Amino acid sequence: MEYLFARRLEGMRRSTIREILKVAEQPDVISFAGGLPAPELFPVDAVRAACDRVLIREGSWALQYGPSEGYTPLREYLVEAMAQRGVACRVENVQVTSGSQQALDLLGRCFLNPGDVVLTENPTYLAAIQAFQGSEARFVPVPTDDNGLIPEALPELVAKHQPRFLYTIPNFQNPTGITMPAERRRALYETAAKLSLVIVEDDPYGLLRYTGEHVPPIKALDTEGIVIYASTFSKTIAPGLRVGWVVADRQILDKLLILKQAADLHTSSLDQRVACEFMTSCDTTAHLAQIRASYGTRYQAMDAALRALLPERYQWTHPEGGMFLWVTCPEGVDTWPLMQRAVEHKVLFVPGCDFFPEGGGDRYMRLNFSNSTPERIQEGVARLAQLLRE
Amino acid sequence: MEYLFARRLEGMRRSTIREILKVAEQPDVISFAGGLPAPELFPVDAVRAACDRVLIREGSWALQYGPSEGYTPLREYLVEAMAQRGVACRVENVQVTSGSQQALDLLGRCFLNPGDVVLTENPTYLAAIQAFQGSEARFVPVPTDDNGLIPEALPELVAKHQPRFLYTIPNFQNPTGITMPAERRRALYETAAKLSLVIVEDDPYGLLRYTGEHVPPIKALDTEGIVIYASTFSKTIAPGLRVGWVVADRQILDKLLILKQAADLHTSSLDQRVACEFMTSCDTTAHLAQIRASYGTRYQAMDAALRALLPERYQWTHPEGGMFLWVTCPEGVDTWPLMQRAVEHKVLFVPGCDFFPEGGGDRYMRLNFSNSTPERIQEGVARLAQLLRE
Repeated sequence: MEYLFARRLEGMRRSTIREILKVAEQPDVISFAGGLPAPELFPVDAVRAACDRVLIREGSWALQYGPSEGYTPLREYLVEAMAQRGVACRVENVQVTSGSQQALDLLGRCFLNPGDVVLTENPTYLAAIQAFQGSEARFVPVPTDDNGLIPEALPELVAKHQPRFLYTIPNFQNPTGITMPAERRRALYETAAKLSLVIVEDDPYGLLRYTGEHVPPIKALDTEGIVIYASTFSKTIAPGLRVGWVVADRQILDKLLILKQAADLHTSSLDQRVACEFMTSCDTTAHLAQIRASYGTRYQAMDAALRALLPERYQWTHPEGGMFLWVTCPEGVDTWPLMQRAVEHKVLFVPGCDFFPEGGGDRYMRLNFSNSTPERIQEGVARLAQLLRE
Repeated sequence: MEYLFARRLEGMRRSTIREILKVAEQPDVISFAGGLPAPELFPVDAVRAACDRVLIREGSWALQYGPSEGYTPLREYLVEAMAQRGVACRVENVQVTSGSQQALDLLGRCFLNPGDVVLTENPTYLAAIQAFQGSEARFVPVPTDDNGLIPEALPELVAKHQPRFLYTIPNFQNPTGITMPAERRRALYETAAKLSLVIVEDDPYGLLRYTGEHVPPIKALDTEGIVIYASTFSKTIAPGLRVGWVVADRQILDKLLILKQAADLHTSSLDQRVACEFMTSCDTTAHLAQIRASYGTRYQAMDAALRALLPERYQWTHPEGGMFLWVTCPEGVDTWPLMQRAVEHKVLFVPGCDFFPEGGGDRYMRLNFSNSTPERIQEGVARLAQLLRE
């Protein structure tokens, strides 16, 4: 049988990262490839206790169909959590999603007709590219510097491409680890507001800052309703629960709700309640402090190992939080074939080309430091350094 | 701010049912509207115990990112479960989804370009219409009789419309409750195979038969790889877990996997493990027997009340399983305005027009009997009968 598939699939690739992750499951392999949070920091006992309390207290309600908007007490909690991040919103401005991946997918479907343009950082998050490719988007990169997107570049790009939105990860960007400072966020917001350009602000890592000062989200500046904020519990509780959320103007959420109903009716009733119970009844401050301290130590270990072991002319970023850093190799290095050989050296990374929607990026690699102990980071960087010297 | 939304949203409506369900939460309202399973039959204690065992045994693995294809032991269980339904398949033929709603959404995105035709029963499942509308499908109804779709109608429809697939619910169809007999399934399959027409077989209710003999799925006949089978644990464990699955040829699942990664990375790790643990370690035979017996009793109560109380010239279907029956009102009755008045009578149903993708259906209503006790069914039908006599 020869099947006729939809056109959107022509532009979509399987995730290299998810393929690499299969190799990563071998215990003698040290993986800097995935975007996995540290499983030893998952609050397994607290989640188990939360499951128990939820099912005792709510019984069959915790297992019945629920509203597509999300579990109301969770949305109420999220209003408070957003206020702590500097964003004032109401319950009606919060839509729960099945992880923030679904938020990106639904936002793509909400705004994009085939061929429509999305402005992005370059490089940008691989799975956002995939999500928007599902709506047959085209990608136009915005010039960046060490502080992220350059707002002055927007007017010309908007005039030329009529983009449906700008996608950005202002905190500890994936893959570069770069954070956009407050003054840059303001300049970006003001420029976008003048251009009536919608900003999708993806903030999965915002609470993972191990050094420096918190910078309020772009959404905190939003008086015009142009900013759509997305986040997740994947990095603060655990990714297996698949609970994320979107904060946006009600006009946008009215459309998103229709798409959410069609996509999966609603997010797991149990997962939503467990996330809510954990966030509202456990000591999340101590839990988050532990994650931050651990990721800070791991970043330091990786940075020190890279300094000690990598050949000359390699450079890398120095993120203040998050899970990744970004290595720039000397001119002439191609990290894609290098990755194939890295598998033989039992060390894994993601080659840069995966993060450039319009091609390029051969001389970069993304390294994850959240998923390995300092000892394994040291050993993994040694393996990587040996590979680079061969 | 005036937002520019994607074209697909023009054809998509909010679900009337999900709006009605908000009214249904008032305790003095008797709702025959939703498609809710009976919550008093949810295995709450067994699910709680399963959560506990899973988190003790697997710890952080139960909360980490997982493979997009689904949790392997669950896929292995599903291979066995499919064999019990008469379908031989392998683990590689099983894709786990976030409820069967996501299966429909992903299948739409897998096969449909804007304007492509889906063949359907008429009436058909409302949320399938919504899912396929998300891919800007057009719908062409296939003529039906009391045994479901009429295969002889297919060659002309295929020649005229080049449909990308035929969507059918052969067991206890939603909304009519009709079941397609074995010989009709064979004729349908053979006709479709000759036409190289893909069949999407949606089977959420197959295990809810309270009378008569099990009829094997169309997928059991499939030697050509043209049948895609979708089902869910929503009606056998509980819908709040959001775990469904697709069985199909590997060529199709390769594409579905790409769409699944982009849509939500994977289905909740916890929900998948809890579903697997419940199905493999609890007495599911007794549990299912209890659901079947209860739904049979409720169907009988509704059928008896309708016979006793409805005015003359009303007719309804006599399903052998599932959760719904379908009422045909006398010529001239319009159930849409009737529904507005039904709210005042504190009884709810879904007007027929919601189930006809190309319009029509004014004189029908769908009644759900799984979500009310026999006493409340009796009282609800009395309220409905009074409304119809006014």
